[in-house]
Amino acid sequence: MSTPAKIEPLSWQQETSGYLRLIDQTRLPTELVEIDCRSVEQVWTAIKRLSVRGAPAIGVAAAYGVCIGAAETTRQSVDQAKQQAHAAADYLATSRPTAVNLFWALDRMRKVIDRDGFGKTDAFLEALLAEARAIHQQDRETCHAIGRHGAPLIAAAKNVLTHCNAGALATAEYGTALAVIYSAHDSGQTLHVFADETRPLLQGARLTAWELQQHGVPVTVICDSMAACVMKEGRVDAVIVGADRIAANGDACNKIGTYGLSVLAKHHNIPFYVAAPCSTFDLSLASGDLIPIEQRAAYEIAEAFGKRTVPEGVEVYNPAFDVAPAELITAIITDRGVIDPVDEANVRRVVQDAS
Amino acid sequence: MSTPAKIEPLSWQQETSGYLRLIDQTRLPTELVEIDCRSVEQVWTAIKRLSVRGAPAIGVAAAYGVCIGAAETTRQSVDQAKQQAHAAADYLATSRPTAVNLFWALDRMRKVIDRDGFGKTDAFLEALLAEARAIHQQDRETCHAIGRHGAPLIAAAKNVLTHCNAGALATAEYGTALAVIYSAHDSGQTLHVFADETRPLLQGARLTAWELQQHGVPVTVICDSMAACVMKEGRVDAVIVGADRIAANGDACNKIGTYGLSVLAKHHNIPFYVAAPCSTFDLSLASGDLIPIEQRAAYEIAEAFGKRTVPEGVEVYNPAFDVAPAELITAIITDRGVIDPVDEANVRRVVQDAS
Repeated sequence: MSTPAKIEPLSWQQETSGYLRLIDQTRLPTELVEIDCRSVEQVWTAIKRLSVRGAPAIGVAAAYGVCIGAAETTRQSVDQAKQQAHAAADYLATSRPTAVNLFWALDRMRKVIDRDGFGKTDAFLEALLAEARAIHQQDRETCHAIGRHGAPLIAAAKNVLTHCNAGALATAEYGTALAVIYSAHDSGQTLHVFADETRPLLQGARLTAWELQQHGVPVTVICDSMAACVMKEGRVDAVIVGADRIAANGDACNKIGTYGLSVLAKHHNIPFYVAAPCSTFDLSLASGDLIPIEQRAAYEIAEAFGKRTVPEGVEVYNPAFDVAPAELITAIITDRGVIDPVDEANVRRVVQDAS
Repeated sequence: MSTPAKIEPLSWQQETSGYLRLIDQTRLPTELVEIDCRSVEQVWTAIKRLSVRGAPAIGVAAAYGVCIGAAETTRQSVDQAKQQAHAAADYLATSRPTAVNLFWALDRMRKVIDRDGFGKTDAFLEALLAEARAIHQQDRETCHAIGRHGAPLIAAAKNVLTHCNAGALATAEYGTALAVIYSAHDSGQTLHVFADETRPLLQGARLTAWELQQHGVPVTVICDSMAACVMKEGRVDAVIVGADRIAANGDACNKIGTYGLSVLAKHHNIPFYVAAPCSTFDLSLASGDLIPIEQRAAYEIAEAFGKRTVPEGVEVYNPAFDVAPAELITAIITDRGVIDPVDEANVRRVVQDAS
């Protein structure tokens, strides 16, 4: 087997005071363009407009964003740098409300900010950067662990359906849902993927299809409304999706359309898997009803692709996420092992000491 | 209540030898443009590229297309005109495979072509046009009858969800699924509609939202993947869709995505209604498995709206229709009454002597 080029959606560039380089995911698949973020504002905007997206990748980007914020003023005291770092963390927390990895990463950075005993500003900034790098490196390892734990679950599958993009582009590398697919593929299993295009922003068509193609995994793009049809045709052996936040009972919030897929998979007796790192769990929430759902702008639906498709004056509803209930999830694949069956006791057993 | 302007997607223009005027539905909602078809080729192309679409409207357009074909040569004998009419019918039958109303209308025209005793060519052409006009007028009456029969079923509904466009634009006027909604609205019922945008060609966003707005019915456009979410939120009291062909057992073929909606409605205990004229039934087919499903071009998904959204070289699957099975359909609303429960005996009882 050939080794495909590794896709890394973000990297820290050490020149001058350091900055964050991102693949601008809004421009894929037709253009592979990178953008450099040298201010907190730029990082915030990149997250908000989905240049970087995917729960784990958002967390990594925000961690580096705190480093950038802390260093924005030169020749400052440790306390001033800490103030700036806190302000950066607070600001970045307002970028997107649903993916809990954002808050998880910012909390880790805040613990470093609040640490005592930094003699010099440079030592503080170095500690911040070390933590961001650790979060970044941890996500790489996490994704490969998810792949290893998940691959046996789909060992007999020929066709897997996925929704949105829970791949290399959504993480440090390798992905969550797609890590399971890559892991099976890389071990020699013949596997074909149906990728829901994922309206409104088409992350499935634009990003999942692109990175599966790069990796050499056969993929067919379908409209979201066709998933039920291919299931009925007997062409889906498993559904695997990522998650943006998972409640203590196992309810999993993910890209809009995921809930419907979980119902359809149940109807067709197809296993429905969620793949996510432990940082995606929010054990403070008893159930998925409590997860805040981001509402996004109407134009994403009404004027997608630069062309008006909904008449002026007509209402549009655009929730970015929905929640697959635990009872419709066959198993949750984490970096620490598989949660099966999905219930609070099993969630806490696997996740608790990681949080 | 104000009386909204009547939307008629097609009309026969009597000037010169007569031609068919259509609203070009590919250009709505941003442009209301009409196109005039003066040749069979133009009618065929208008059907193929969906300038005119919707099972009943396709049938009416094809009937007029036969009239145009018969009259394309001047000063011909009755036999020559008949030959041309047959050729036109055969050609128009190749435009789209799924909607049975097309074949139903062409069969009616063929019966006139095969009728004996036309002394002069003009008499033959007049008889053809009279039949096309009768099909057209019958569809108007049919749609209003569907509205009358269906409205009591949604009398308690505040929110109805529909998919694709089964409205005035899909018929002679008033619609099938939307006729039920218009009928309820026109009698004073407060009703709000969720319109699935209906990928890939967005007939829900472009056409259903447009005509509901014209009619004064409040409408919210959602992506197809959001239907499950609004159902779970308790905001859908009924689903009503049209159909392109219904088998003898009540399995109903309609725009891709309909099957999934029928599963989702069942899961949420929401009634799922299909509204269609008796001309949409194909009693020669025992079940929906036998209905031919049109496969459409990949670019409709991969390059929608003039922008490439699927990477070059990636497969696309684009079935235009799927089939909601009879057991997931609460009732079928026809111009001759309501089929409930949906089974072959009830289908034949209501439909048989109409075919």
